[in-house]
Amino acid sequence: MIGRLNHVAIAVPDLDAATAQYRDTLGAKVGAPQDEPDHGVTVVFIELPNTKIELLHPLGEGSPIAGFLEKNPSGGIHHICYEVEDILEARDRLTASGARVLGSGEPKIGAHGKPVLFLHPKDFTGTLVELEQV
Amino acid sequence: MIGRLNHVAIAVPDLDAATAQYRDTLGAKVGAPQDEPDHGVTVVFIELPNTKIELLHPLGEGSPIAGFLEKNPSGGIHHICYEVEDILEARDRLTASGARVLGSGEPKIGAHGKPVLFLHPKDFTGTLVELEQV
Repeated sequence: MIGRLNHVAIAVPDLDAATAQYRDTLGAKVGAPQDEPDHGVTVVFIELPNTKIELLHPLGEGSPIAGFLEKNPSGGIHHICYEVEDILEARDRLTASGARVLGSGEPKIGAHGKPVLFLHPKDFTGTLVELEQV
Repeated sequence: MIGRLNHVAIAVPDLDAATAQYRDTLGAKVGAPQDEPDHGVTVVFIELPNTKIELLHPLGEGSPIAGFLEKNPSGGIHHICYEVEDILEARDRLTASGARVLGSGEPKIGAHGKPVLFLHPKDFTGTLVELEQV
């Protein structure tokens, strides 16, 4: 069911410093910061040859990653995203297995403009998993 | 400098349950458990089309992931691994930038039989980063 690893998302307390570290120290291909007001984050995409790293920083009030950064002031890996072909089929298979989908259970349009769902970390090896329909 | 994302490593409290979840619920291609006594872990590799997930479970006394699982009893993402062409060049560039390399600072042979180093999470956005020479 799951396909490619679409991205690993890392929440960071200082977006400029993290961007510089990936660009200058690690020599990676790093994009410009993109504000995603609907998702409460500013994102910097790091393009690796086989997948992406997304650096996330809170944007505006009530950002979904503000609490995570309070608990992890140095930052940390926030979630991983797997691609699926049919997100409704994936959701139904997951909920039938007992996994909980966060929020209303209906896919939302994610930061890449595609339908996404998040699964409850307690049901997935302590890992926040995003599924994105591609 | 960094190339492909070689793997994402997830520490899990119950290797059988996590393996079944990835195989049966997520429909991923999952290998057999491999004991790595030199590294204090049993590993299950999950082959995605573009990278790997490694499920890690403690093996023997003094496993390097035992403390992580005490702090994160549901499990969680333990580290991410980037490929580099020349690990000594990578190390020298990183230490020149102020990043700390864990342990002696000399590469060790990792679970894939290749030279690896780990970087201090506090110097890398709260993320434990492994570098593997490929």
